[in-house]
Amino acid sequence: MKPLILITNDDGVQSRGLQSLAQIASKVGDVVIMAPDHNASGLSTSITCTRPLHVMPMGHQGSITTYACDGTPADCVKMGLEHFCPRRPSLVLSGINFGSNSSINIVYSGTMGGVIEACLNGFPAIGFSLLSHKPDADFKPGASAIKHIIQQVLQHPLPDLTALNVNIPHLPAEQIKGIKICRQAKAAWRDSMEKRTDEQGNVYFAMTGRFECLDQGTDTDEYALSQGYVSVVPISPDLTHHHSIELIKHIEQ
Amino acid sequence: MKPLILITNDDGVQSRGLQSLAQIASKVGDVVIMAPDHNASGLSTSITCTRPLHVMPMGHQGSITTYACDGTPADCVKMGLEHFCPRRPSLVLSGINFGSNSSINIVYSGTMGGVIEACLNGFPAIGFSLLSHKPDADFKPGASAIKHIIQQVLQHPLPDLTALNVNIPHLPAEQIKGIKICRQAKAAWRDSMEKRTDEQGNVYFAMTGRFECLDQGTDTDEYALSQGYVSVVPISPDLTHHHSIELIKHIEQ
Repeated sequence: MKPLILITNDDGVQSRGLQSLAQIASKVGDVVIMAPDHNASGLSTSITCTRPLHVMPMGHQGSITTYACDGTPADCVKMGLEHFCPRRPSLVLSGINFGSNSSINIVYSGTMGGVIEACLNGFPAIGFSLLSHKPDADFKPGASAIKHIIQQVLQHPLPDLTALNVNIPHLPAEQIKGIKICRQAKAAWRDSMEKRTDEQGNVYFAMTGRFECLDQGTDTDEYALSQGYVSVVPISPDLTHHHSIELIKHIEQ
Repeated sequence: MKPLILITNDDGVQSRGLQSLAQIASKVGDVVIMAPDHNASGLSTSITCTRPLHVMPMGHQGSITTYACDGTPADCVKMGLEHFCPRRPSLVLSGINFGSNSSINIVYSGTMGGVIEACLNGFPAIGFSLLSHKPDADFKPGASAIKHIIQQVLQHPLPDLTALNVNIPHLPAEQIKGIKICRQAKAAWRDSMEKRTDEQGNVYFAMTGRFECLDQGTDTDEYALSQGYVSVVPISPDLTHHHSIELIKHIEQ
């Protein structure tokens, strides 16, 4: 039997990036899509505790079955795994996101929220993002790298409590140099709440900002992407800063 | 000049847990509260990208100045740091949350989302949670541990890119045995989307589930809490699973 692959994203079920990923995955296995019915960007690993959730069947296309859910990407993964997968998935994917999810800023990412949810549930999981926000962004040049990474993960189990975060430079296929395993760059968004006044004179704030990467390492995702490589970062949902445990023992009582 | 302490939470600006934390912090410094105007539980490190945000001044009480914001805990921290703190805060706090934020499940926590946001911005940050969801939960027995931890962090800078996650057992003061530095337990919520039918026969799903901790370690937050200790876990916003980097090199091309 072909492997079953569950796919979510945070741009919403209508996204071209999601459809591109489903097409690639359908060459390797049967696909169930469970994706938000709305734009869920920036929702991190949030879950919906304060209202009920609903699921809308969106039909079949070849070996791809699609559902839309009014929850977050993490909700979608829980929903898909528990109620809508006909058998245990071999893999959970998220994306392809419009725009990068690189560096330590992925804590905000709904795309990676779906991945972390799958990882917490013991499933191999990979998030994919393309470094372009353009509506006509070209997802084709990254397709062979995506297929390669999916096949590798199906063939060689990931280490325990480890998922993958994959970013793809927005370049023609012949300019993508290869695939690099990296760590997250230490970077941040600065000046991100812009104060504005509406036509009635009321003050409001809008999320904006500029990306600042002061990390000079050549082993980071930011560096690999700047050199034309697809970046692959192994991530963990365990936020413990193990090296700091000994450094803060003075707090004990 | 007294240190300035910025406080947020995810239970909302009206929460008794927030007020308790502000009272403790006000004995050490001047306090600015910027907290959600609603229950923002489960919102993780999500940020609001798709609509404008607003801030409502809620008045002064002694050295405590309070604002409410219609955003997430991470939004509140960005907002407070950029626009509403009269000087650079020495510390950012989040909580006191009603209910635990322990083990690797803190990826869902809005309380810890505020902490991670502060940490990404280079500020020392601590999240506090009490192991009780009861409306009349008693925040007093944990007060001396909270004050001790705040003072320790003000006196001894935390390691780079490290924040603290503190959980407090809901016990009488004399039964709290002390403070332990821990790692996160590996645990998860199981069976979390319950399928239900409403009075019109429509299917919906509700977040539920049971907490399952199979981690037998005695160095975890779950173990320390079970033994009557306040648990302190150093956490990092860097999700890189550094030990896995060498283990997945076969994916490179």
